[in-house]
Amino acid sequence: MEKIVALAKARGFIYPGSEIYGGLANTWDYGNLGVELKNNVKKAWWKKFIQENPYNVGVDCAILMNPQTWIASGHLGSFSDPLMDCKECHERFRADKVIEDYMAEKGIAVEGSVDAWSNEEMANYIEENQIVCPSCGKHNFTDIRQFNLMFKTFQGVTEDAKNVVYLRPETAQGIFVNFKNVQRTSRKKIPFGIGQVGKSFRNEITPGNFTFRTREFEQMELEFFCEPDTDLEWFAYWKEFCINWLKTLGMKEEEMRIRDHDQAELSFYSKATTDIEFLFPFGWGELWGIADRTDYDLTQHQNVSKEDLSYFDDEKKVKYVPYVIEPSLGADRVTLAFLCGAYDEEELEGGDMRTVLRFHPALAPVKIGVLPLSKKLAEGAEKIYSELSKYYNCEYDDRGNIGKRYRRQDEIGTPFCITYDFESETDGCVTVRERDSMEQERIKIEELKAYFEKKLEF
Amino acid sequence: MEKIVALAKARGFIYPGSEIYGGLANTWDYGNLGVELKNNVKKAWWKKFIQENPYNVGVDCAILMNPQTWIASGHLGSFSDPLMDCKECHERFRADKVIEDYMAEKGIAVEGSVDAWSNEEMANYIEENQIVCPSCGKHNFTDIRQFNLMFKTFQGVTEDAKNVVYLRPETAQGIFVNFKNVQRTSRKKIPFGIGQVGKSFRNEITPGNFTFRTREFEQMELEFFCEPDTDLEWFAYWKEFCINWLKTLGMKEEEMRIRDHDQAELSFYSKATTDIEFLFPFGWGELWGIADRTDYDLTQHQNVSKEDLSYFDDEKKVKYVPYVIEPSLGADRVTLAFLCGAYDEEELEGGDMRTVLRFHPALAPVKIGVLPLSKKLAEGAEKIYSELSKYYNCEYDDRGNIGKRYRRQDEIGTPFCITYDFESETDGCVTVRERDSMEQERIKIEELKAYFEKKLEF
Repeated sequence: MEKIVALAKARGFIYPGSEIYGGLANTWDYGNLGVELKNNVKKAWWKKFIQENPYNVGVDCAILMNPQTWIASGHLGSFSDPLMDCKECHERFRADKVIEDYMAEKGIAVEGSVDAWSNEEMANYIEENQIVCPSCGKHNFTDIRQFNLMFKTFQGVTEDAKNVVYLRPETAQGIFVNFKNVQRTSRKKIPFGIGQVGKSFRNEITPGNFTFRTREFEQMELEFFCEPDTDLEWFAYWKEFCINWLKTLGMKEEEMRIRDHDQAELSFYSKATTDIEFLFPFGWGELWGIADRTDYDLTQHQNVSKEDLSYFDDEKKVKYVPYVIEPSLGADRVTLAFLCGAYDEEELEGGDMRTVLRFHPALAPVKIGVLPLSKKLAEGAEKIYSELSKYYNCEYDDRGNIGKRYRRQDEIGTPFCITYDFESETDGCVTVRERDSMEQERIKIEELKAYFEKKLEF
Repeated sequence: MEKIVALAKARGFIYPGSEIYGGLANTWDYGNLGVELKNNVKKAWWKKFIQENPYNVGVDCAILMNPQTWIASGHLGSFSDPLMDCKECHERFRADKVIEDYMAEKGIAVEGSVDAWSNEEMANYIEENQIVCPSCGKHNFTDIRQFNLMFKTFQGVTEDAKNVVYLRPETAQGIFVNFKNVQRTSRKKIPFGIGQVGKSFRNEITPGNFTFRTREFEQMELEFFCEPDTDLEWFAYWKEFCINWLKTLGMKEEEMRIRDHDQAELSFYSKATTDIEFLFPFGWGELWGIADRTDYDLTQHQNVSKEDLSYFDDEKKVKYVPYVIEPSLGADRVTLAFLCGAYDEEELEGGDMRTVLRFHPALAPVKIGVLPLSKKLAEGAEKIYSELSKYYNCEYDDRGNIGKRYRRQDEIGTPFCITYDFESETDGCVTVRERDSMEQERIKIEELKAYFEKKLEF
């Protein structure tokens, strides 16, 4: 992981946030290559989930929503972590994590998830087992209290209760409150889905593992609305769709794991939930949660808003509150997964090593490096660069020997390099070198556009 | 304007935010067409300012930044509005706006901008002229006090001063604090620029005019770093570049106005500032601010962070803090401008009216409508739809007569419609109809991809 973090910083993928001021907790800024990589991930999601998919359309909702939303969604009531302090060393802990770590250490199996326990159950367990502070080893904790994970702010001049608003903790609710609007304006019939890409915020007690868990993060969520009895079919459909999306973008099967939640772990409203996990350098981590949320969300909003959120099927002449399948993916997480998965060190003939980021071409931040063999060849090479830049993010590099320039492009994952040499001036051809095979072929300049169109199709 | 707002809601461009809960102040959600339109605006900006431009690269920084940032930028000290309440009716006003409205009504010319006055100067002016409350007509105001426009929240468990963080009021500062990082990782030499697209937040007292001024908004900012004595040249370069970008995307000259700030209006650190304004239905409004900010920002951050933010030019062997040209554009504003500019009602032969959104093809949310003449022709038409959907956002519509379907596509600004008819089954051709001219031509199905590639090039 240290190698990935170092490379990310050195090559302009991800820098620590506010670095010149010593950073800010676990915030991160995407650099000149990182922004392209993450944008490509978001584009690839939008292309396959929205643009090409005949069922789905998109929305882009405000981060600040009417607080009634969070009453209906349950976030105001129960989106919280159980916290306790050690009275001896004053460190603060999530009680459920302390218990889980204790159980893991002792090899105790747990049914369901500890975070479903009440504060009292957790306090009792800690007491009965005399669990000690992970930091100082004493057993002397405060009571457990619930800490809500939503960031709170005030809209308007006075900081009083009626001006409180929250930064959304998920993009999903913007979709639910607009279900009727989108259904009406898109003229979609059920089944159909609404997707959204955007920032969410959670005041996590323990963010960490680089960009895996951050307080500010970006989500790519789809809420797919279907008829009540068809939900498990659609659940299976989207589960497979998500797995295929990852595989199409080059994620390897051995780095993926599908974990179905068992009955004890399921939320009370969910009929089925699956996590797609990825093998990060720090271990398996959740990437994509796919949940059959039944009619829970729309019913909740219907109850609180008093608006009718049901759907009338005018062919079957039945009215119902649609069921929802929700595949929810973290854009930062999956970007990190693609970055980790792409990292490779390869021994070349002769014993030299090269670092290569083996990104799928659709994800690579730079698609084509344009490398004139000599600075004297700038005119012709720049012409190719500016022509191809209309279609792809390209990089022009005329510094250092050609071998070093290839290595530099390998290290940022550029799938193709064009070398423009003295012969190019007379034969109208360039050498195209492919990143992974390092094979080179001679291509006519006028055919480059068509050549890359085929190679870079996604 | 009412027509635009109504059409935006009816056709899925923009809905009121949190509408089922009665909304939330002036928040707005982009619907199924609005998200495509706004994304196209952002894509068009990125393509011309970052991807195709050899000088510039992008970044994507966190919204939550170390609060030291806002000390250096001046936002903590002076990013505030002067507020006063009417003691009679308890309405709240911006003192500068009350004075400006008074002056406008009386035809009094003002040198510079009232918002540069001190609280005392404003209070005196209001007293001397016995200006009355715009709401109740009495003259009885509280003192004027400064209200900071940054949204404040708390990171971590306790709501105390050391955990205060702010939602960024502009994306620019994320670029300044990363100036060194990006320069290093991109290996750019001055002159070069760093662009960013992202959300910003300002706790405006009086948001309004639909999406023109909202508390949560998205910016597209470029910070262009250059050598101190070259700044006015680059200022002129970017000013022209921005104007051309708008024109290329179909903005009409008569809807644009260039307003250079005179000496009195300039910020103390700025050598030149220009606003590009657009004629909205509610009047002229600022779209794009282009400012020569000198070395103010980097110097401020250098002073507060104690990090060296100067640049060493290794050809000229000189070291300096770069000057900055900042073209700063509101994504929501310019999207609204394009929407307003596109709106047209046209009388057809025979006296019928049609509503058309004359979007530039690069901005149109749907590029191609695929319309089978009969539901029996679904197979062939769907094949075309799914093939073209790989490249463009397309819509499939088989409901209603063909004339109505054309009108519907006109009303959402779709530049091209494909009609698949019974003849298509045998001759392998479809009719392509262009939105503005309403001209139709017969095109071979296999040539559609190349045809649209040419028509939709940007």
